[in-house]
Amino acid sequence: MAIDLLGLNERLLGKWADRRRQGRAFAQRPVVTRVPGESLREHRDRVLRALEEMAAERLSYLAFPTSAGGSGDHGGNIAAFEETVLGDPSIGIKAGVQWGLFGAAIMHLGTETHHERWLQDVMDFRLPGAFAMTETGHGSDVASIGTTATYDPATEEFVIHTPFRGAWKDYLGNAAEHGEAATVFAQLITNGENHGVHCFFVPIRDHETKAFLPGVGGEDDGVKGGLNGVDNGRLHFDHVRIPRMNLLNRYGDVAPDGTYSSPIASKGRRFFTMLGTLVQGRVSLDGSATNAAQLGLTIAIKYANVRRQFAGGKGLPETVLLDYGRHQRRLLPRLAQVYAMSFAHEELLLEFDEVFSGRNDDDAARQDLETHAAALKPLSTWATLDILQEAREACGGAGYLAENRLAPLRADLDIWVTFEGDNNVLLQLVGKRLLMDYAKAFKASPIGTLLRSRMPRPRGALRSTEFQRALLTDRAGRQVAEVAAALRPAAKRAPADGAAIFNRHQNALIAAARSHGELLQWEAFTRAVDATEDGETKDVLTALRDLFGLTLIEQGAGWLLSRRRLSAARARAVTAIIDGELLPIVREHAVDLVEAFGIPDALIGAPIATGAEAARQQEAQEARELAADR
Amino acid sequence: MAIDLLGLNERLLGKWADRRRQGRAFAQRPVVTRVPGESLREHRDRVLRALEEMAAERLSYLAFPTSAGGSGDHGGNIAAFEETVLGDPSIGIKAGVQWGLFGAAIMHLGTETHHERWLQDVMDFRLPGAFAMTETGHGSDVASIGTTATYDPATEEFVIHTPFRGAWKDYLGNAAEHGEAATVFAQLITNGENHGVHCFFVPIRDHETKAFLPGVGGEDDGVKGGLNGVDNGRLHFDHVRIPRMNLLNRYGDVAPDGTYSSPIASKGRRFFTMLGTLVQGRVSLDGSATNAAQLGLTIAIKYANVRRQFAGGKGLPETVLLDYGRHQRRLLPRLAQVYAMSFAHEELLLEFDEVFSGRNDDDAARQDLETHAAALKPLSTWATLDILQEAREACGGAGYLAENRLAPLRADLDIWVTFEGDNNVLLQLVGKRLLMDYAKAFKASPIGTLLRSRMPRPRGALRSTEFQRALLTDRAGRQVAEVAAALRPAAKRAPADGAAIFNRHQNALIAAARSHGELLQWEAFTRAVDATEDGETKDVLTALRDLFGLTLIEQGAGWLLSRRRLSAARARAVTAIIDGELLPIVREHAVDLVEAFGIPDALIGAPIATGAEAARQQEAQEARELAADR
Repeated sequence: MAIDLLGLNERLLGKWADRRRQGRAFAQRPVVTRVPGESLREHRDRVLRALEEMAAERLSYLAFPTSAGGSGDHGGNIAAFEETVLGDPSIGIKAGVQWGLFGAAIMHLGTETHHERWLQDVMDFRLPGAFAMTETGHGSDVASIGTTATYDPATEEFVIHTPFRGAWKDYLGNAAEHGEAATVFAQLITNGENHGVHCFFVPIRDHETKAFLPGVGGEDDGVKGGLNGVDNGRLHFDHVRIPRMNLLNRYGDVAPDGTYSSPIASKGRRFFTMLGTLVQGRVSLDGSATNAAQLGLTIAIKYANVRRQFAGGKGLPETVLLDYGRHQRRLLPRLAQVYAMSFAHEELLLEFDEVFSGRNDDDAARQDLETHAAALKPLSTWATLDILQEAREACGGAGYLAENRLAPLRADLDIWVTFEGDNNVLLQLVGKRLLMDYAKAFKASPIGTLLRSRMPRPRGALRSTEFQRALLTDRAGRQVAEVAAALRPAAKRAPADGAAIFNRHQNALIAAARSHGELLQWEAFTRAVDATEDGETKDVLTALRDLFGLTLIEQGAGWLLSRRRLSAARARAVTAIIDGELLPIVREHAVDLVEAFGIPDALIGAPIATGAEAARQQEAQEARELAADR
Repeated sequence: MAIDLLGLNERLLGKWADRRRQGRAFAQRPVVTRVPGESLREHRDRVLRALEEMAAERLSYLAFPTSAGGSGDHGGNIAAFEETVLGDPSIGIKAGVQWGLFGAAIMHLGTETHHERWLQDVMDFRLPGAFAMTETGHGSDVASIGTTATYDPATEEFVIHTPFRGAWKDYLGNAAEHGEAATVFAQLITNGENHGVHCFFVPIRDHETKAFLPGVGGEDDGVKGGLNGVDNGRLHFDHVRIPRMNLLNRYGDVAPDGTYSSPIASKGRRFFTMLGTLVQGRVSLDGSATNAAQLGLTIAIKYANVRRQFAGGKGLPETVLLDYGRHQRRLLPRLAQVYAMSFAHEELLLEFDEVFSGRNDDDAARQDLETHAAALKPLSTWATLDILQEAREACGGAGYLAENRLAPLRADLDIWVTFEGDNNVLLQLVGKRLLMDYAKAFKASPIGTLLRSRMPRPRGALRSTEFQRALLTDRAGRQVAEVAAALRPAAKRAPADGAAIFNRHQNALIAAARSHGELLQWEAFTRAVDATEDGETKDVLTALRDLFGLTLIEQGAGWLLSRRRLSAARARAVTAIIDGELLPIVREHAVDLVEAFGIPDALIGAPIATGAEAARQQEAQEARELAADR
């Protein structure tokens, strides 16, 4: 069997293949290349120059509306930026702060005046800005931030103020050095009433001297575990006055006399609408994590395919690492996982583009998109850390050298799992949505829902699409139903007792959300297999999809068996099929399957995966033959 | 219930409590403290100075024999050095290279002349050295290294030579800059015959100029994923001549005329005897990893105990992170794991001290010690990476800041899992030993062994010691028996086919070795509980031990259920007991349980765990109360 490499590569690159190629081309510029051991100073300076080059090439224009001079290409924008992770992850994140958060806040939360006044400078990076939402004391719970914006009708100004240390804005990219303004989230107070969190445009530094403006202070977050090309920092405000018009007033406005008005009556819905515009950060993290995982496996699998260690037996030649059963177990199910992540991300990106282009933009579509992103981003970002770590270990000491990229890449991506929505918090959001959907279904047909618990055990061949779908769907649904049943008494209790009951099942709810996300990945993978035309490619992808599906089942066997959804004999058969059938097929095509990611050697970078180890093995082999001849 | 903190602390510090306190005191010196963002140059220089201070304080004398002027305190030596990981992991590793590997090779593989000539300078750090075993092409498979030492009777010299690039010595601490000599492992060839790997003392740098001596070359390994205070590098030799007496000749010697002799007839046993003297590296990694994990959990749990996020319900105060069910699930089973690692390590260290002190030093004891270390080191080092990562994520963005230590500590410890024996290779060694033991038992009583498969399912209360022991013992034994049965056909096949059969079950064998290691940890934990006198402390430790045991069972439920060793109902009960009974008890005592590690604030270092977050919460609370009063 031979894989149709070009066809598979095109499918993996997806709808915005050209934008991805553009991103990869940019990622190969010298200014993007990571320099092992560069200081924080050098790293920040290089990343700053990279953003200037991005703006010069108008990559920064992609997501802004044509009305503002942009290209309005939402999906293509994300696709292009995701690829820059292959060069230096700091660049995509600093760009994301500048254009995806700071600029996007002005665009999505502001109105025409704001767009006209600031967007051009934002796009051209003449106005670098920070996105000041998170506070030291409040990250996930944005609604409870402490910063206040109190309206003063006498001067028609808002007074931005930080009441205590925990309310300092923190971890903000562009805040430590380069930001000259910030979109600051604060509790809007007017006429003595708090209308909840709104966003304000606040100048923070003098354009010439880069010194803080009066009343503004801050600190550098200093060295981080990675991503040190981004100048994260803290900001605080001591009664800083800004004009009334600096309120980004699309979803809430204050009249000169202090009267508050909003197109959205519900305070809660207004808050979630404002935050919802930021979903693109989560979408892009899902994609960039997937790209980084592709790179990690490319390095580890190419190395494992040439590196030899230990003879297979007396007199036998040394064995290539990838021929070891344990090594296959370490890398190949993760390869299947990256394929699942890749196909699932493409579907998420298509959905995102539908909503943000306005082609399918209503409340329901937005909520579905947010749930979809909240389900996938945790799974892919955690998987990427796991994959980069396993890849690093699979390359041994060589994997620890900075030149081979795995360790620094993992260090940079570490923060992916807790920023732009902490993974556990996001999965809890998904879980709550699943509970709501379940409650609706229960209301519509309580008997049907209850009967689920008596539904027969899913049957069929373990490698059949129908069986895997039935089992994974059944699991996801049943886990939600179990939590729903356990929470039923909570509704009748006092709030504190209800919270305690919920709390006891929080872990199970998050597990249910994870199962839901895994099902989404499996479905996306299956759709991609179904859409594959080349017969041999389809066979290999089917084996890879089976490896993904059966690995999920093997990992979840404890739950499945304890709920009698899988028999003991079939659980053992899952492991036997993985080891005996699937790993041999996938091993045979493993190098092609990473070649299909199409990452050029210039972007792989790691010497061990781009020829150095192959040359060493060749030389060692020749030396052994020469010795044998003598 | 209140824990006897002092008593528990003393038990955790173990037999060498005073040495550990000495190590912790040293770790608080300014020269040891990690400086976020320091350059590779600054880091290496600081660590070099730290080693000079160690030598000045004669910490370096601990493990050397009294005959050489040392203190001969093997267990105490390891204990003291393990604690330095709390300051800067690079220091323990560079010290380990100098005294635990380079010096230990001279001591254990050399004889009196060598000791007299070099040990004093080694101890005093006047003679810094590298331990040149690993090659770029051969790490785990030391027997296959390419470097040769060919004896020339004409000059009574050995000729040390590197035949090809893959045979360069690589990843050697002290090799890039500071080493002036190296203990070089090479194939000893005399009179045309290869007698296998032996160790040679080879001067590599001029003491004054630090330039490589003629014929010696090398490279700097450059920046690594962490541990950048150690100057790892490469060495190669172009027909470098050393005197005959530079062969460290305890286990193999060459007479002036080139005649080879050895006190150990078997080439294989001789090789393993030479390598066996290096077991102390693995012992100390097991312990230092455990210390790092203690530090990580101390930071995350102290932070989680004060940090608040989200109100438990409308009108309720914000909830402390550690009161969330999910947060407890993330940190508390890992706390139980660290206790298991701590008690298991103390037992390993006692065993090591028995052997190395000579009180119980024979072949069987050495082999048991090596198997014990090979079983524990993989489990503790992997667990530590997992724990530091979970701790980092549990502290959110604050966990990513270098000042809060978790991310840099994890980066440093990353290499623990693949050096001094790759974890997977070590577990395979354990697995092979278990197979041998099983084969012996099978030979002695094939019926008894076969009957095992019909043994009744372990019964008893889930929290009872007897049940947990029965189940974990049964699992470990049965997993080995399964692999042994699967491998039986391999004995009758050609070597290549036999290797293929073994390979297909390699993953299962490594899983069996892991189960064996977990059982060792659980038994050590149980013995520690049994030895606890204070009743309330004992109750809490019992709950913690149960949390460890039941978490192992929950994680292994897939295997246990698929082999019908656990019923579906009991598997569900395990989860219910963890969530409903054990986590609440352990949560109540969680802060005490990390306080019992006794790590002083000066060594914890992280501001979020030493008052900064507590002060912020206090201030925020006061601000809220003030606002409510108005």
